[in-house]
Amino acid sequence: MSSLDAKFARLGADNAPGQEVRQSADDLKSTMRGDILPGVPVDFSHGDVDAFEPTPGARAAWEDGFTAGAAQAYTEYRGAAAIRDDVAASLAAFTGAPVDPVDELIITPGTQGALFLALGAVVDRGTKVVVLEPDYFANRKLVTFFGGEILPVALHYFEDAPQRGPDLGQLKAAFEAGAEVLVFSTPNNPTGVVTQDAAILEIARLAAQYDVTVIVDQLYSRLLYGSESYTHLRACAERPKNLITIMGPSKTESLSGFRLGVAFGSAALIERMEKLQAIVSLRAAGYSQAALKTWFHEPEGWLESRIAQHEAIRDDLLAIFRAAGFRTACPQAGSYLFPELPKLVVSPEDFVRLLRVQAGVTVTPGSEFAPHTGNSVRLNFSQDHAASVAAAHRIVEMVERYRT
Amino acid sequence: MSSLDAKFARLGADNAPGQEVRQSADDLKSTMRGDILPGVPVDFSHGDVDAFEPTPGARAAWEDGFTAGAAQAYTEYRGAAAIRDDVAASLAAFTGAPVDPVDELIITPGTQGALFLALGAVVDRGTKVVVLEPDYFANRKLVTFFGGEILPVALHYFEDAPQRGPDLGQLKAAFEAGAEVLVFSTPNNPTGVVTQDAAILEIARLAAQYDVTVIVDQLYSRLLYGSESYTHLRACAERPKNLITIMGPSKTESLSGFRLGVAFGSAALIERMEKLQAIVSLRAAGYSQAALKTWFHEPEGWLESRIAQHEAIRDDLLAIFRAAGFRTACPQAGSYLFPELPKLVVSPEDFVRLLRVQAGVTVTPGSEFAPHTGNSVRLNFSQDHAASVAAAHRIVEMVERYRT
Repeated sequence: MSSLDAKFARLGADNAPGQEVRQSADDLKSTMRGDILPGVPVDFSHGDVDAFEPTPGARAAWEDGFTAGAAQAYTEYRGAAAIRDDVAASLAAFTGAPVDPVDELIITPGTQGALFLALGAVVDRGTKVVVLEPDYFANRKLVTFFGGEILPVALHYFEDAPQRGPDLGQLKAAFEAGAEVLVFSTPNNPTGVVTQDAAILEIARLAAQYDVTVIVDQLYSRLLYGSESYTHLRACAERPKNLITIMGPSKTESLSGFRLGVAFGSAALIERMEKLQAIVSLRAAGYSQAALKTWFHEPEGWLESRIAQHEAIRDDLLAIFRAAGFRTACPQAGSYLFPELPKLVVSPEDFVRLLRVQAGVTVTPGSEFAPHTGNSVRLNFSQDHAASVAAAHRIVEMVERYRT
Repeated sequence: MSSLDAKFARLGADNAPGQEVRQSADDLKSTMRGDILPGVPVDFSHGDVDAFEPTPGARAAWEDGFTAGAAQAYTEYRGAAAIRDDVAASLAAFTGAPVDPVDELIITPGTQGALFLALGAVVDRGTKVVVLEPDYFANRKLVTFFGGEILPVALHYFEDAPQRGPDLGQLKAAFEAGAEVLVFSTPNNPTGVVTQDAAILEIARLAAQYDVTVIVDQLYSRLLYGSESYTHLRACAERPKNLITIMGPSKTESLSGFRLGVAFGSAALIERMEKLQAIVSLRAAGYSQAALKTWFHEPEGWLESRIAQHEAIRDDLLAIFRAAGFRTACPQAGSYLFPELPKLVVSPEDFVRLLRVQAGVTVTPGSEFAPHTGNSVRLNFSQDHAASVAAAHRIVEMVERYRT
């Protein structure tokens, strides 16, 4: 196998969210138990922007952008200056630390684009990178693609852990072992764990002490439940010199169809990211960028209502899975649930395919997020409430069919 | 300097089209001759979508995509299946060879995205890649970024060359020297030269013989002037096994603000490109993809009219530059002119900045396209006709001021 074959074999995307349509189900027939479970199909692999619609005004903002013409079609690679001005001010207020719109922010094609550029800017062949397990699957794939070496650190996500969050002992050991970069999401994808104030302070302090570059993916930090609190690493008094924070309106705000993300932080890294963007895709789609004008300017009460609706779905699904005996952490933020399924007679990957074929339910296999979470499945519960409750019951019924 | 510093130093984007706004002009004052030349500012660094508006129906198609909701927001990474069906049929008819919409086509964020994915799929550390000189600047940067080694081959673009087009002798020598990949644009960016039938046949034959992967950027192949003819490499009877063709509606069709491109060809390479897209930006913006429904379905006469308007501007600018004694090749297609300027008392890069500051004219320095074309400048003349003629006269006047 050539080195390129090997490189792309490591980038397997067959089980990635949205790619399930490319799978054949022919080989499953011999293992199938029982009939089709009827019900409204639910695709938990990503949020449903029909159930939770794009933020008010996003469409009109795009249309204004289109009407503006050339000025909005061709922007600086890092995005339109006026839009960066506005977004930087919002993000400074939200995170509690200044953001220079000229030098410290880049608009990207989705937060995926931001993650790619950020890791591309700091990971080279042999760079040691701390990756949490479990965490968003692209983190591992990106580090590998750029030739970096992964130093895994456990994320303790169940409530009965002595301390929920990244294992700070392992983190310190990885920093001592020469880690140059730390990338992690908080709220965590796939578990919804929010790294708490004391841990964020300690991570910031250690990263400063060991001069580790930190990339923190805060995509879900606006969708915070109940009485949870959130600490922004970038606002810590003691923090690393090289720090990039990533956010975007694809999730809570349902603007995924616009492909918009932002990265903000150290000017030297943002400059590298822009250089990379110049050869990757030039810029986030110009007219789409205009939709960022609505971000953080949603109507009063809109965010609170969206959070309350998601919290209600979370509570119902959590109750269903826990009643069935699936060990499931309660997400503190975001719209992911990560139940651990009991031992089954089929492989987890085949079970996920059976779920899709027999129960009309699409989930993402846990093996995407860490080597040891293969028995879990990830659900994005930003869905129609009733349909997702019914689909959760079908998951339980399917597990009963296939459990050992 | 660290290896990452060096890597990004090679990605310099300061002179890239659209990035000029980030430059300071303070250091130019001491060398400035004469006053400001009044006139409507013209940015020749890219086409003006206000002068040549997006194709009819593109906006409505986006709006239909938005209204369609979830199905259009989240597509397969390679793009929405129904849209690929339609585009594949159009491209098969246009290029004269079949395109399988399931396995042989990917929709990307602009043709820049397609180029990035295509080169990322076939260039690894040490891969020998033939790059034409001059050619689109990102080709060189991409090969370098992926760690490949550039084997330069001359493009003869002036009419007095024995044979206009890629130097086939040099090309064969590069293939014999172990080239694994050839990337080139036809119509050529920045010169507008179309590689002619006999040369395309020979390139296809040689690539097949030496098993060289070919990536051919045909972005401007619809904007063909007068009696010019065009040969699609992918339709040659004898052709390389690994072949990717790149096109998109950003130029002729003025849909740059949507960020849409397509790559089509060998299924194994398209699959790699999709895997890479999964970690780079997931997909071209979902709602934007819907605008591809208008591509190749423009109203009758629309394309002919657009070509005629561009040809008229081309002829006027060419006459102005040739009258001033600037050696300038006549483009056979596309909207680029690449005049060679006489010796000046300032560096070509400073002259380009002076042009912007004193004459309100933005062009791209020739050094972006080949090491030896530093005395040329590239103009994208997809602009308001009268304004571009006036701006061309200002360029001539500025050259007179600064010539040695």
